[in-house]
Amino acid sequence: MIPVDVHSPASSPTVVHVPLGERAYDILIGRGALAASTERIAALGARSAMIVSDGHVLPRHGEALEAVLAQAGLRVATITVPPGEGSKNYAELERVSNALLDAKIERRDLVVALGGGVVGDLAGFAAAILRRGVRFVQVPTSLLAQVDSSVGGKTGINAPAGKNLIGAFHQPALVVADTALLDTLPERELRAGYAEIVKYGLIDDRAFFEWCEANAARVFAGGPERDHAVAVSCRAKAAVVVEDEREEGRRQLLNLGHTFAHALERIVAYDGARLVHGEAVAIGLVLAYRFSAQLGLCPGQDAERVRRHVAGLGLPSSLAEVPGGFGSPEAILDAMAQDKKVKAGRLTFILARGIGESFVQDDVAADDVLAFLRQAAAEAVPA
Amino acid sequence: MIPVDVHSPASSPTVVHVPLGERAYDILIGRGALAASTERIAALGARSAMIVSDGHVLPRHGEALEAVLAQAGLRVATITVPPGEGSKNYAELERVSNALLDAKIERRDLVVALGGGVVGDLAGFAAAILRRGVRFVQVPTSLLAQVDSSVGGKTGINAPAGKNLIGAFHQPALVVADTALLDTLPERELRAGYAEIVKYGLIDDRAFFEWCEANAARVFAGGPERDHAVAVSCRAKAAVVVEDEREEGRRQLLNLGHTFAHALERIVAYDGARLVHGEAVAIGLVLAYRFSAQLGLCPGQDAERVRRHVAGLGLPSSLAEVPGGFGSPEAILDAMAQDKKVKAGRLTFILARGIGESFVQDDVAADDVLAFLRQAAAEAVPA
Ligand SMILES: NC(=O)c1ccc[n+]([C@@H]2O[C@H](COP(=O)([O-])OP(=O)(O)OC[C@H]3O[C@@H](n4cnc5c(N)ncnc54)[C@H](O)[C@@H]3O)[C@@H](O)[C@H]2O)c1
Ligand SMILES: NC(=O)c1ccc[n+]([C@@H]2O[C@H](COP(=O)([O-])OP(=O)(O)OC[C@H]3O[C@@H](n4cnc5c(N)ncnc54)[C@H](O)[C@@H]3O)[C@@H](O)[C@H]2O)c1
Ligand SMILES: [Zn+2]
Ligand SMILES: [Zn+2]
Repeated sequence: MIPVDVHSPASSPTVVHVPLGERAYDILIGRGALAASTERIAALGARSAMIVSDGHVLPRHGEALEAVLAQAGLRVATITVPPGEGSKNYAELERVSNALLDAKIERRDLVVALGGGVVGDLAGFAAAILRRGVRFVQVPTSLLAQVDSSVGGKTGINAPAGKNLIGAFHQPALVVADTALLDTLPERELRAGYAEIVKYGLIDDRAFFEWCEANAARVFAGGPERDHAVAVSCRAKAAVVVEDEREEGRRQLLNLGHTFAHALERIVAYDGARLVHGEAVAIGLVLAYRFSAQLGLCPGQDAERVRRHVAGLGLPSSLAEVPGGFGSPEAILDAMAQDKKVKAGRLTFILARGIGESFVQDDVAADDVLAFLRQAAAEAVPA
Repeated sequence: MIPVDVHSPASSPTVVHVPLGERAYDILIGRGALAASTERIAALGARSAMIVSDGHVLPRHGEALEAVLAQAGLRVATITVPPGEGSKNYAELERVSNALLDAKIERRDLVVALGGGVVGDLAGFAAAILRRGVRFVQVPTSLLAQVDSSVGGKTGINAPAGKNLIGAFHQPALVVADTALLDTLPERELRAGYAEIVKYGLIDDRAFFEWCEANAARVFAGGPERDHAVAVSCRAKAAVVVEDEREEGRRQLLNLGHTFAHALERIVAYDGARLVHGEAVAIGLVLAYRFSAQLGLCPGQDAERVRRHVAGLGLPSSLAEVPGGFGSPEAILDAMAQDKKVKAGRLTFILARGIGESFVQDDVAADDVLAFLRQAAAEAVPA
């Protein structure tokens, strides 16, 4: 067990504070956090709010949020975008930002993102550029969004050249992570989001990884372990963000597994039917450990232990499990070179010396990557 | 004469420093500043640069800039947008940002805006959101851009609901204001840009306004007075920006004349054939003084003196001079209410107690505005 300094009494949400000076904010976590957030929202002192959501989430949770906003004394408008990664583009950004203007959202008003990472990234970016910055509130409804994308202020859309290449740093004014909202999340999405939870253990918290090994099933079932996992993850992410808000150093650790993941997502053309982000991350985490092992940096048994946990949950854990195929090792390397984390032509990877011991390596040779990918590609699907 | 603490020896450009901490930068001003900027640009340590320009400017000054960038050791690519306000939209933003990605512009590389305020605002915004922020250099080629838009980090595009409603604060890494580039600027644009120079005198520098009254012709002719006027203007703008980078207080003074100007621009549907920005500002400055006089805040003779200087230069100075008409007083008020500087429903105006004595008034009654507009509308064209 990791030392628990976050508490979740049934009645009031856990609060994780993100101390970013004048951009500081709180994350409210737990079952019922949304209904419990009225006063917090009222205290923000806005007059109007516009909910940005998607067609899956609004019918399920829109009314509950509207009720909270209305009770907080806000005039409320709503806009939805089509569900899925495809909405993170300029066309939807323009549509959302024009709707915000039509609703007369001003600098001190609120853009409220109700949805997964797609809605959060898009709505947050729209808030960042509307009138050069209006406040926004994240109400993440996917596990991935609750433990990752809603915290830290990275917002943005995709470009033909790659994911998240257009965007802004814009911290939310409040995050409300009501874990009960996850009860309606499709099983596959829940599983995928879990990959990002495991990531925090792998980055620098071996004890939390071990807690995950023991408690994954209960996180899925929705007991207090879910709240705990979300709180630990938010705290871990917040700590990294506070140290390096604009991703110039340590924050890159959050990209553990993501150089591989982004390349795979590009290869399946961001087709969520084939691979959703968390699934790509699951494969990426395993590959990052196996690559570290192949480079002689990390014990092979740690890499195998990561693979076993990931695979044991029904998540994909190898290139062979990319539905529809992954192209070729060369295609993956090529897709990596498109990634924004390329500096002066060299590849940056997050590697590991063991579970909970990751680090940034910014001059990995393309040859080493290719050799590893060829080996990983040649393997059969693990049992 | 105002005290001169900026110098322009023929050989080396005047340097105005903008001390914004880690976002600090220099403005190089004068004839030949571009050719003299090679070392400064090289010192930025980028590998690549992409020039963003328009179809009027690139053929005239593109080669000179390319030569400087190449001499600074940079790989150079170029993209142009159609000239004019119409390019400040999402479609051009998307096209420019995709071109930057295709040219593999990375975080430490440079986006170089070569053009007027349109190109500067659009390219600066593209730089702000590309990979969540890449560096950019302003090479302003219109008088308005040299004395106003290239300094201060406001970037953005227009929306159907209004001008500059979508954007970011993103400071340039360097501004190169070569006053010789203005030699190819159409007379009408030169005149329009001059309105923003006068504005600095009106805001808080009566002596500079008097210098303008005496030297306007020489500024137009392109002598050392032009360099002086640009340097004083940049220094004035920089001082305000440094005090209030994100426009939460004092920086609003820079909007002197602009509540009227933006409303008029909206009314002519941003049709530059009817009214370019600086012309709208010229009218707006005169109206701001006359409104201040009507409210009993400012001597009528100061308002008349402003009108006389503006009109004497061949700039429009009254509602009657809006080509194609200004609609109605009600239409102007309506267009003002769309402006982003509306807070909680009240109108914010920059008013004046006299020449060089402007201040922010954030609760001007709509009735007072309407009464003033009705009177201004009823007047004949001044002689
Ligand atoms: N900003 C960041 O720091 C950051 C970090 C990680 C990921 N991301 C981004 O997040 C996105 C992925 O987020 P995601 O996995 O949440 O995707 P998503 O937003 O597409 O949500 C996944 C699916 O679940 C549905 N859904 C969400 N909540 C639901 C609920 N409670 N009930 C029923 N259905 C629900 C959505 O409609 C969608 O179909 C990617 O675009 C990724 O780039 C951003
Ligand atoms: N960011 C800010 O702080 C700020 C401040 C003021 C104005 N602005 C913006 O600036 C824009 C207006 O700028 P502008 O007046 O420079 O308009 P502009 O960029 O459209 O330039 C005016 C015209 O002059 C041409 N031109 C420019 N330089 C030339 C040269 N050297 N030779 C020949 N032709 C040349 C252009 O092609 C254009 O046709 C507006 O969009 C306004 O919103 C921004
Ligand atoms: Zn991720
Ligand atoms: Zn202006």
